[in-house]
Amino acid sequence: MTEKIEKRHKALREKLVEIAEQRIAADGMEAVKARDLAKTAECALGAIYNVFDDIREIILIVNGRTFQRLGDAVQHDLAGRENTSPTERLITIANAYLDFAVENTNLWRSLFDIPFSSDLNAPQWYWNELDRLFQYIAGPVNECCAQMSDTDRTLMTRALFSSVHGIVSFGIENRTTPVARDELERMIEQIIIGVSGNK
Amino acid sequence: MTEKIEKRHKALREKLVEIAEQRIAADGMEAVKARDLAKTAECALGAIYNVFDDIREIILIVNGRTFQRLGDAVQHDLAGRENTSPTERLITIANAYLDFAVENTNLWRSLFDIPFSSDLNAPQWYWNELDRLFQYIAGPVNECCAQMSDTDRTLMTRALFSSVHGIVSFGIENRTTPVARDELERMIEQIIIGVSGNK
Repeated sequence: MTEKIEKRHKALREKLVEIAEQRIAADGMEAVKARDLAKTAECALGAIYNVFDDIREIILIVNGRTFQRLGDAVQHDLAGRENTSPTERLITIANAYLDFAVENTNLWRSLFDIPFSSDLNAPQWYWNELDRLFQYIAGPVNECCAQMSDTDRTLMTRALFSSVHGIVSFGIENRTTPVARDELERMIEQIIIGVSGNK
Repeated sequence: MTEKIEKRHKALREKLVEIAEQRIAADGMEAVKARDLAKTAECALGAIYNVFDDIREIILIVNGRTFQRLGDAVQHDLAGRENTSPTERLITIANAYLDFAVENTNLWRSLFDIPFSSDLNAPQWYWNELDRLFQYIAGPVNECCAQMSDTDRTLMTRALFSSVHGIVSFGIENRTTPVARDELERMIEQIIIGVSGNK
């Protein structure tokens, strides 16, 4: 492949990912359609398959970017709070997660609409982004659960992520019923204070 | 409507719900299609709409039955354990939920694939079945969190349900990766022991 073609392919890849990201943000993962992408990117339908294996690969790349933005949001909210208690830091992370999901609902949903398994054969950078999120949680968990075994702390990190995700998911799916934002925050706080021993 | 027609309608309703339940159990909510239902029930396509508003109504009825079976499963596992500690009862309920989700994955998923909001305009019996599940959790929560306000206990009940659901969901979606069953149980236990104060 000449350098020129490589450059053109790279530009098309970026364009298609941008369009797919807009579609997901507006109408969810289901709205990413090959014909629409080709039309909007002004390329032939077949050109998409020169630069991507399939539509799923494009969605996966958008999801990788979403994970990265989510990680950035958590990092941003933690900045300057390094000296707060582990419980406070866990609550900060969970609220950053809640904010992100509320503000980027369709992009956030798409992260979990693609099955989350090793079957997915996702590239390493994807798992790295996911791992980054877990590392943020693992920090305060290791401090407040110092007496636990390594295995238990790993499971606790995962359990907390799953729990907060469960609360946020139900909260967002239920948002037409009167589940107030402060109630969601209180539920998150109850779980985190409980498991962290309010340390 | 004559009694005879009413009886025939009732029989058709039941038949269609049975078929839809089998389809959901085998292949998920998306597999419930009007043409297939009519063919399998040996009725005209239009006959479905004489007895139901739409396919969504049929799925909702299946979901109501699934909630009832889930409630029965929880009740069954709690039987004889009324005198165990609130923490132990919460763990029993959560494990019953995990078992049910593992054994009835597609039916269980369908409960949450239909948006869970008041928009749904679901019949009262549907909310009653859902409420029954919350009542099982509220019992031990009220005991182990007796010092909390009523509002906090209500939120705690909901937070625990959401947390266990989050752990079970991620566990099931990830089941091709090595997330062992005993690890899921341990994660559930960590959250419940944490928030219940192991009482």
